[in-house]
Amino acid sequence: MQPAVILLSGGLDSATTLAIAREEGFAPFCLSIDYGQRHGAELVAAARVAASLGARGHRTVHIDMNQFGGSALTDPGIAVPTAGVAPGIPVTYVPARNTIMLSLALAWAEVLGSRHIFVGVNAVDYSGYPDCRPEFIRAFENMANLATKAAVEGAQLHVRAPLIDMTKAEIIRQGMKLGVDYGLTVSCYQADVQGQACGVCDSCRLRRAGFEAAGVADPTRYYSPQ
Amino acid sequence: MQPAVILLSGGLDSATTLAIAREEGFAPFCLSIDYGQRHGAELVAAARVAASLGARGHRTVHIDMNQFGGSALTDPGIAVPTAGVAPGIPVTYVPARNTIMLSLALAWAEVLGSRHIFVGVNAVDYSGYPDCRPEFIRAFENMANLATKAAVEGAQLHVRAPLIDMTKAEIIRQGMKLGVDYGLTVSCYQADVQGQACGVCDSCRLRRAGFEAAGVADPTRYYSPQ
Repeated sequence: MQPAVILLSGGLDSATTLAIAREEGFAPFCLSIDYGQRHGAELVAAARVAASLGARGHRTVHIDMNQFGGSALTDPGIAVPTAGVAPGIPVTYVPARNTIMLSLALAWAEVLGSRHIFVGVNAVDYSGYPDCRPEFIRAFENMANLATKAAVEGAQLHVRAPLIDMTKAEIIRQGMKLGVDYGLTVSCYQADVQGQACGVCDSCRLRRAGFEAAGVADPTRYYSPQ
Repeated sequence: MQPAVILLSGGLDSATTLAIAREEGFAPFCLSIDYGQRHGAELVAAARVAASLGARGHRTVHIDMNQFGGSALTDPGIAVPTAGVAPGIPVTYVPARNTIMLSLALAWAEVLGSRHIFVGVNAVDYSGYPDCRPEFIRAFENMANLATKAAVEGAQLHVRAPLIDMTKAEIIRQGMKLGVDYGLTVSCYQADVQGQACGVCDSCRLRRAGFEAAGVADPTRYYSPQ
């Protein structure tokens, strides 16, 4: 089995991505990033998800991105929007987040001797984040293939984004087939310490609509009546 | 004055890069990365250099890259080579280091509203690191221009590597003209806590040869007789 690095936030998309990588026969090494996100409960979820889906390893890297701020997820002074998904890039956008996360995955992949990075970005039922688009993923892959000693020595690195063209409902159906327990995952931007969800942030709304469209009971625990 | 983010390690090259950015009229915001490097003394040097060259801000971001290892600079079990600069990429190569550092610079640049990142990479008198080559810098810049909200909104980001084609002697001469005090900088991979240098690692050798070629007295403090 070839090793692959899976970026695992602890949410629905990255859990499904992990299950897909495993289904494809990779030995999954999961990487979570504690960047000071408001919803630190997702990191607890990531550990549960990694264990439940047979990860061969799971690391959490800490970066104090709060000192930059600039996002509702890293600056306590910026509120998470709860009025519904609106056009444009919302204030939950975290500057350069996926670039940073993929860079750390690139580092670990090189040390592991892995040529495969999986990331659960999605450009259909998403918040319009620029670093979830296919053209960004391709550009990162191109850059990565010039960045490392492994690349200079001839290894081709592949950045895989298997969910990128799927709807949220398709992602959920695929994950259910592969045995993902979505009750273990946390998507909410303002989850409480028990991992219970607000139900009204964009991430909760996209997730809940996905369960409805998939015709699957929503296993999310909410901290207020919905 | 437009803001620019300068990646500042505390070594000779990044100090010169900071001086060049200031000379070009930018308001320099310096970013140092504590990635668990063996030569943590360079971070102390970075603070001195930032202050001496009029940085408008200086941040140090912490990342625990030691948990990946894979380099003599992040794994205490891998010795720093001291026998002389050899062909190929040495074990002091840190997987994906410049990618990670530039990614963090990209995040801060976006929050600052800056369109300029300066990095002191050099592909002449260097250790053959793949992420110091011009093709890597160009690919990173291309990726960065797809990664951020600022880019989507039309801002063009520039990754500047003003030293990339210069010899070490040229870098030193340029820095001297611009008032860099190289006695404040630390380049040694195994500097002691006072910032004194070993004199025999590749970084010390390239630096010392640069001072000799430039005809400039070497201000480096060494911890053993040279």
